[in-house]
Amino acid sequence: MNMCTSADSKLIDFMRSKPEVETSFNRVPGQAIKCGFGMQGVCCRLCSNGPCRITPQTPKGVCGATADTIVARNFLRAVAAGAACYLHIVENTANNLRAVGQGKTGLTIKGPETLRELAGVLEIKETDPAQQAVKVADRVLEDLYLPREQQMAMVEKLAYQPRFRRWQELGILPGGAKSEVFDAVVKSSTNLSSDPVDMLLHALKLGIATGLYGLTLTNYLNDIMLGEPQIATAKVGFSVVEPDYINIMVTGHQHALIGSLQEQIVTPGAVALAGRGGAKGFKIVGCTCVGQDMQLRGAHCREAFAGHAGNNFTSEALLATGGIDLVVSEFNCTLPGIEPICEQFLVRQICLDDVAKKANADYVRFDSSEGAAIAEKIMHAALASYTRRRDKVQVDIPVHGHDDAVTGISEKSLKKFLGGNFKPLIDLIANGKIKGVAGVVGCSNLTAKGHDVFTVGLTEELIKRDIIVLSAGCTSGGLENAGLTSPGAAELAGDNLKEICRTLGIPPVLNFGPCLAIGRLEIVAAELANALDIDIPQLPLVLSAPQWLEEQALADGAFGLALGLPLHLAIPPFVSGSKLVSKVLTEDMEQLTGGKVILEGEIVPAAEKLAEIIEQKRKALGL
Amino acid sequence: MNMCTSADSKLIDFMRSKPEVETSFNRVPGQAIKCGFGMQGVCCRLCSNGPCRITPQTPKGVCGATADTIVARNFLRAVAAGAACYLHIVENTANNLRAVGQGKTGLTIKGPETLRELAGVLEIKETDPAQQAVKVADRVLEDLYLPREQQMAMVEKLAYQPRFRRWQELGILPGGAKSEVFDAVVKSSTNLSSDPVDMLLHALKLGIATGLYGLTLTNYLNDIMLGEPQIATAKVGFSVVEPDYINIMVTGHQHALIGSLQEQIVTPGAVALAGRGGAKGFKIVGCTCVGQDMQLRGAHCREAFAGHAGNNFTSEALLATGGIDLVVSEFNCTLPGIEPICEQFLVRQICLDDVAKKANADYVRFDSSEGAAIAEKIMHAALASYTRRRDKVQVDIPVHGHDDAVTGISEKSLKKFLGGNFKPLIDLIANGKIKGVAGVVGCSNLTAKGHDVFTVGLTEELIKRDIIVLSAGCTSGGLENAGLTSPGAAELAGDNLKEICRTLGIPPVLNFGPCLAIGRLEIVAAELANALDIDIPQLPLVLSAPQWLEEQALADGAFGLALGLPLHLAIPPFVSGSKLVSKVLTEDMEQLTGGKVILEGEIVPAAEKLAEIIEQKRKALGL
Repeated sequence: MNMCTSADSKLIDFMRSKPEVETSFNRVPGQAIKCGFGMQGVCCRLCSNGPCRITPQTPKGVCGATADTIVARNFLRAVAAGAACYLHIVENTANNLRAVGQGKTGLTIKGPETLRELAGVLEIKETDPAQQAVKVADRVLEDLYLPREQQMAMVEKLAYQPRFRRWQELGILPGGAKSEVFDAVVKSSTNLSSDPVDMLLHALKLGIATGLYGLTLTNYLNDIMLGEPQIATAKVGFSVVEPDYINIMVTGHQHALIGSLQEQIVTPGAVALAGRGGAKGFKIVGCTCVGQDMQLRGAHCREAFAGHAGNNFTSEALLATGGIDLVVSEFNCTLPGIEPICEQFLVRQICLDDVAKKANADYVRFDSSEGAAIAEKIMHAALASYTRRRDKVQVDIPVHGHDDAVTGISEKSLKKFLGGNFKPLIDLIANGKIKGVAGVVGCSNLTAKGHDVFTVGLTEELIKRDIIVLSAGCTSGGLENAGLTSPGAAELAGDNLKEICRTLGIPPVLNFGPCLAIGRLEIVAAELANALDIDIPQLPLVLSAPQWLEEQALADGAFGLALGLPLHLAIPPFVSGSKLVSKVLTEDMEQLTGGKVILEGEIVPAAEKLAEIIEQKRKALGL
Repeated sequence: MNMCTSADSKLIDFMRSKPEVETSFNRVPGQAIKCGFGMQGVCCRLCSNGPCRITPQTPKGVCGATADTIVARNFLRAVAAGAACYLHIVENTANNLRAVGQGKTGLTIKGPETLRELAGVLEIKETDPAQQAVKVADRVLEDLYLPREQQMAMVEKLAYQPRFRRWQELGILPGGAKSEVFDAVVKSSTNLSSDPVDMLLHALKLGIATGLYGLTLTNYLNDIMLGEPQIATAKVGFSVVEPDYINIMVTGHQHALIGSLQEQIVTPGAVALAGRGGAKGFKIVGCTCVGQDMQLRGAHCREAFAGHAGNNFTSEALLATGGIDLVVSEFNCTLPGIEPICEQFLVRQICLDDVAKKANADYVRFDSSEGAAIAEKIMHAALASYTRRRDKVQVDIPVHGHDDAVTGISEKSLKKFLGGNFKPLIDLIANGKIKGVAGVVGCSNLTAKGHDVFTVGLTEELIKRDIIVLSAGCTSGGLENAGLTSPGAAELAGDNLKEICRTLGIPPVLNFGPCLAIGRLEIVAAELANALDIDIPQLPLVLSAPQWLEEQALADGAFGLALGLPLHLAIPPFVSGSKLVSKVLTEDMEQLTGGKVILEGEIVPAAEKLAEIIEQKRKALGL
């Protein structure tokens, strides 16, 4: 069977054993011949005079747009869409927190400490937690809905101060986030902006809005509602699926939309309901980032959560195990590819957010004040699906994954683990036992050498060089299933890092959970910089989103650049057709924010380049 | 010289006489070979696994997205961008009205009657016009900024009631317009929606928001600030440029941003300033829709306004006359193609809105409270440019255009002209002297047979069939320069329409001005339907956007479909790769709203199809 490969050989073996199931892996060869214009970003299909394509013979579109303009427009619109996705998430999350505070959900506040801290940062005077929750949510929503001319109030409060000042100097402090997205879409329309530099600066604004609101605040609000992460070990991989249970697979990014469900399915009533179908109970099987988020907060949903099965491109295969009875999707990354597999395996799908409506799924509009009723509906649907399908479908769950993935790592739980501050980590970096820190984040794709291949390969090369890796996003799913977040992975690290890992009983890869947790990495970076009294770009810290997939990853990347971090990508975004845009991103950006994009499509050279940057940063700090 | 053609032969002759100037017309042949995937909408470049292209051999993208999903996503995102453009305009316009009401601009309210009426419709209790203006503006802004779950309050007040009820039944009443755009962008992202029908319904919501807010309300607010249209004749074409003046060419859609400028340039101080350079004064030369808007309200800016030169694709040639000293752009359609011509002819460019920032232009951020100071800055820049360039550049203004274009037509001025109500028009339709009404609206492009070729050809065919044509948008510029809005064009009409035109002294094409005036056509349609006590789809009324160009036209089109109107396009939007999407748009839509898309790329057959529909509608009404 002609299909792309994966770092996860058991996954590949499993898929090869199911030739009747078509997955994304099978479709890669058919789409192998790529359009060069699209790859380079020099195809414009905004207007009916087009599509226009830039070539040496036709250096402009009909309207006169150059490659620089076309590339910048396409790029800005993609970043805007990615930012919009994250901002949609934080908006829903804030609405949920508001409803929790108002007592409309039946849910309690599980992270009072985070709530207290955030209320303090925002100078909220209320002391009653419920009132604090409402106020916090209101502040978030107010900022999101400001017009573009008004800067969002929380940026200054949330950002690391030297960064805030730099952004202020550059004039890239974002106005109301939704309006920034909106105007970016306008700006990238036909016969509007033709200024590539202005469009790239707009992308940085979107990056800041994405990072501080879409990522960081979403984490905070979820920690308040759903509980703060606690370090623990967890089971990962397809083995988490227990066939005796009615299994609800979740995909998406909005943990708050699953909050009621994870409470409801463990009640005695729910267990009894499942019993009617002959099952032991209901379980939620994690997939994509919402699975990572549940795993991260596993301490607060132990009974409900079967475990995290894998990242975006494992979801199709997971359905092919036959062990899943219902899919609940609340956002991306819910591949369209799962739809025919759901039909094949008689799995019903329910979508909770219309932006993520799958063609053959039922849509149940999520409303936080009806969380319990919706959970009830989901359970009944799951039971009905279970009853209908289980005697018709083969359940074949491969031995896959690990039992000892270290999870629950957040900016706070890590600090606690280190004894209350980051000094032990700083000392290890200072004395060279740890050379530096690499955030290996973002998605998985199937084109950077294959599913998780670059992610796993690069991570192995980095830890070998005594660079500790922090992960967030679908990279985490890949690294977990490759065993790199298990303590035993210490053996793959360089001698110094290995020793530290052994001593502390930790893996050389610290998994912060979903892509939203890129916001947590920023907090760690800011705390390290603050302790050293330097700015973030001075840290021996690099980012890589080796296998970025979606526009959201470009918005994350824009945040990384705004933070002033070197950002490696194995596959360039669709910008290579513009020398100007490419130069700004890979060179000139360093003069602006301190960050830059590093394009390197081979694993070892990528690791070497990142290690070299870390070495330079160490030298500059006199280490 | 290999270039595309135009309905405007003098324009073509002029461009042929300037071989040193490259315009869009010259670039058409080089971009003649189109990408079939892009044309059909089956190219997806949202993620790094792509670009993916759908073929019979590869019916799905890597993620599993089908042609239906890919086409619907691309289409929805395009409609969202187009809607965003119009909503950006109404937001700025409302902000300006607010500032006028607050007395921050030095401008007075020139359309008190429209203000009073609108305040009445919105049930605003204030009686002081300034306070009314502020309230009206606030109401508009409130609606635009509502979250998506909350329906906009004005929809019910502005919409024709039978339509409102239909939209309610269909569940397509829009929530907060900016959020509807925002979520459409989210929805059309990777691994989010895969439901083509839901995405098409979302496009209808965007159409309603575009039509009632972006179009209709922008017209109202501008009428309040800048004066109500009054029927008159006007000079059109390049001949409006008077070389003795310092000529400021305006492009865009935001008349309110030019309000102070049109006041300031006719003051004695301004005339004296121009005199310093040896000029008689300053003049604004209209180009694109803002030119149409100035022409429409010409009664209120007689001295300042030289006249309307032409539509989007005449702007490059207009600069090549050498008679323009400064370009002021406040939105699209400002072609990137003008930039090198401005350099060639030493013309400085100033952009007033950063969404429309041209690469080599100066950016002066418009702020309504600083309108006068900005106007001052523009005049000085124009003077400096005039002084620098006039002895270095040849001024060569061709004899071009007409002196007797009928303009100033609005829903109100037309009704007034007809004696206070639409009964005379209804009677003419009822007795068959006028067979029906066709709105020939939207852009010009260079691909539907050439610049304005389809627009002019179709219009000629329609009037020949005794169908009266109402125009709005760049079609108006084309029809004006072709003489079809001059009374003499009556000779081209069918016998019955000719007689009416001769009797009334009107042309067979009634030009309502900019594309924003599509909102005025809707009001006319609603008034006709109301007088007959029928719904809009029952009227013998058709729409054609024969030469639609931009995403904005797609948003206009979505409004037309929501209104239940047959909508002809000569070039399909990029949807033909999906049978489902094509079928919904061209067939099933009729069951939903009453509207449908009619694709016909030949002029006479298009006219025949539209005439046939009018005939059917007449029959159904018993006419």
